[in-house]
Amino acid sequence: MKKIIIAPDSFKGTMTSIEICNYIGERIAAFLPEAQVVKVPIADGGEGTVDAYLSGIGGTRRKKTVTGPMGTPVEAEYGILPDGKTAVIEMAAASGLPLVDGPKSPMDATTFGTGELIADAVESGCTKIILGIGGSATNDGGIGALSALGVRFLDADGKAVTPDGKGLAQIESIDESGLCQALRGVTLTIACDVKNPLAGKNGAAHVFGPQKGATPEMVEALDAGLLHYNGVLTRHTGVDRKDKSGMGAAGGIGLSLEAFLHAKMLPGIDLILDTADFDKKIQGADLIITGEGKIDGQSKQGKVPVGVAWRAKKQNVPVVALVGDVGAGYEELYEEGITAIFSTNKAAVPYEQARRTSVEDLKFLTESLLRFYCAVR
Amino acid sequence: MKKIIIAPDSFKGTMTSIEICNYIGERIAAFLPEAQVVKVPIADGGEGTVDAYLSGIGGTRRKKTVTGPMGTPVEAEYGILPDGKTAVIEMAAASGLPLVDGPKSPMDATTFGTGELIADAVESGCTKIILGIGGSATNDGGIGALSALGVRFLDADGKAVTPDGKGLAQIESIDESGLCQALRGVTLTIACDVKNPLAGKNGAAHVFGPQKGATPEMVEALDAGLLHYNGVLTRHTGVDRKDKSGMGAAGGIGLSLEAFLHAKMLPGIDLILDTADFDKKIQGADLIITGEGKIDGQSKQGKVPVGVAWRAKKQNVPVVALVGDVGAGYEELYEEGITAIFSTNKAAVPYEQARRTSVEDLKFLTESLLRFYCAVR
Repeated sequence: MKKIIIAPDSFKGTMTSIEICNYIGERIAAFLPEAQVVKVPIADGGEGTVDAYLSGIGGTRRKKTVTGPMGTPVEAEYGILPDGKTAVIEMAAASGLPLVDGPKSPMDATTFGTGELIADAVESGCTKIILGIGGSATNDGGIGALSALGVRFLDADGKAVTPDGKGLAQIESIDESGLCQALRGVTLTIACDVKNPLAGKNGAAHVFGPQKGATPEMVEALDAGLLHYNGVLTRHTGVDRKDKSGMGAAGGIGLSLEAFLHAKMLPGIDLILDTADFDKKIQGADLIITGEGKIDGQSKQGKVPVGVAWRAKKQNVPVVALVGDVGAGYEELYEEGITAIFSTNKAAVPYEQARRTSVEDLKFLTESLLRFYCAVR
Repeated sequence: MKKIIIAPDSFKGTMTSIEICNYIGERIAAFLPEAQVVKVPIADGGEGTVDAYLSGIGGTRRKKTVTGPMGTPVEAEYGILPDGKTAVIEMAAASGLPLVDGPKSPMDATTFGTGELIADAVESGCTKIILGIGGSATNDGGIGALSALGVRFLDADGKAVTPDGKGLAQIESIDESGLCQALRGVTLTIACDVKNPLAGKNGAAHVFGPQKGATPEMVEALDAGLLHYNGVLTRHTGVDRKDKSGMGAAGGIGLSLEAFLHAKMLPGIDLILDTADFDKKIQGADLIITGEGKIDGQSKQGKVPVGVAWRAKKQNVPVVALVGDVGAGYEELYEEGITAIFSTNKAAVPYEQARRTSVEDLKFLTESLLRFYCAVR
């Protein structure tokens, strides 16, 4: 008996990962009816972390009105997984760039609402929080979120600073006595595929500031503010996180979340695979079929097929990637654990034409592989 | 030890069949160095029967000035295979449509030059003749060719008719006493993929006459002429070939060649596979890799991959087709013995772009299959 795992990303614009699992599964049932098929639809969060988890693993959505990035209320949504204990929160839902109505300004934008969502999840009984941090409007080093959770960031006069980008430079001391007690025992994991350090040329303000509306002067001010806050925090916690990988993601929110909540950062794909109990599911598998819309050298940065391949490699399971397009640098993926790559394109036609036959093409390719497999094994 | 046969057609416009054999062979050497690889480059005659044989099997070219389709001399070329005993003659080289300079007229066109090439080959010591019959300008039922070989076609007055389309209606008797004696013991095989009968709506004149320049009136006259000649021939030989498959090919030349020289018609692909000793070469093979530029339902009409699959099926060898494009009706090919089909297209781009990466794409696909094969076998 063969055990085959189907674990694809979506093909953006044509098929969801669940649809792909079903199409491939149907062909396997036709050619290898005796095979044990395990479907693990995966999305890497490119279309939203909550959607990715809920579509892959299931769960429910919860709505909460919180403080938006510019201080006005917004209705934000987050997910609770079927265990009832794990919340999946998207920073963008509370503090995202698309929520900014007027002019964008990371000097004034706050992650306060993200903190409120965390608080709501904890109050709802969640003990595990997965935080997706793409698309934020903020550059506040996470002091907004922590303010919402009870930490006080004080200026030289002992007054609370504004919980935003411009407040960072004013912080002289920190009072965490009011930190929400319910957070004890809560595990917070940040899904992060960005490796930028906190400050400097590759830091949060310089790299991501301009797209959040920062002028060159603001970039310098924000960069200095993050560095200043880190100095205070280093004295407060005894750990300097300035050069740590990922601290520059999402306006530096990781800095506060790690300092006060012991958050861990993990590549998004690893987080979702862990949550899906992937390592256990692939035990004893003979083959894993993964896929994505386009594969290339960039896929090494934690795209679904490569994340899957990393796990498969440890258990010596071959991984076949069925993809739309194969782009430059694909050869580097063999090293990561991808056994072979096949494209669904079966005629030389442009994408606008190819997309119309995407379902048929995927079925054709799957069947071709299964026919070959049955003939040569 | 694995035995793998590489037997592709050319990919028209991008790669010859020999190049394809080499690219695929190189990848096999990299991934299965212990495998025994047998290369059988094949062309189905689409680019000329002589080229197909010479490029696939080797041999030499021979030139001969003969009578062109409209009576003026032309320099024609044919091939002699490495055995020195087999000639490969292309009817188009002596009696082809492109050789007609002035207005086309199948009433006046003759296959005389084709007969002269046959005579030359026999005089050179050949005892096997393979005749490719595509692209002829003629509709003379083969009386031109047989006239060149010594048969006399006589009218009611006992005078030789003109050896062309218009002569057919005049034939009242046949004198084969002058038939070239050297033809005894010579085997003539016609490579023919056309199944049309001699006359009628599906016959030579109606189906192929117009493209050779026949007006509607000429079509009727030529059709009647072929029927009349067949009547005389039936009385002469005791066999009526009117309804026999393939007699309508190439202006009815098969009629005379069968009647006087006992020619056999075979699908072009079978002829070339026999000549290449294909059945023997694939004995004990574990896998055959074939291919063509585009595969579709039409490939059942004796295109290379399907011809290869017919042979493979009898020996239970799996056949994988690596192709440029996969077109409608491909599913029908599984029945013919094709195990699986894979397209070299690895991105959704139009042909003009895809053709530029054809070599890389073929190598990629071959490597992908071998990687998969090595991982799952």
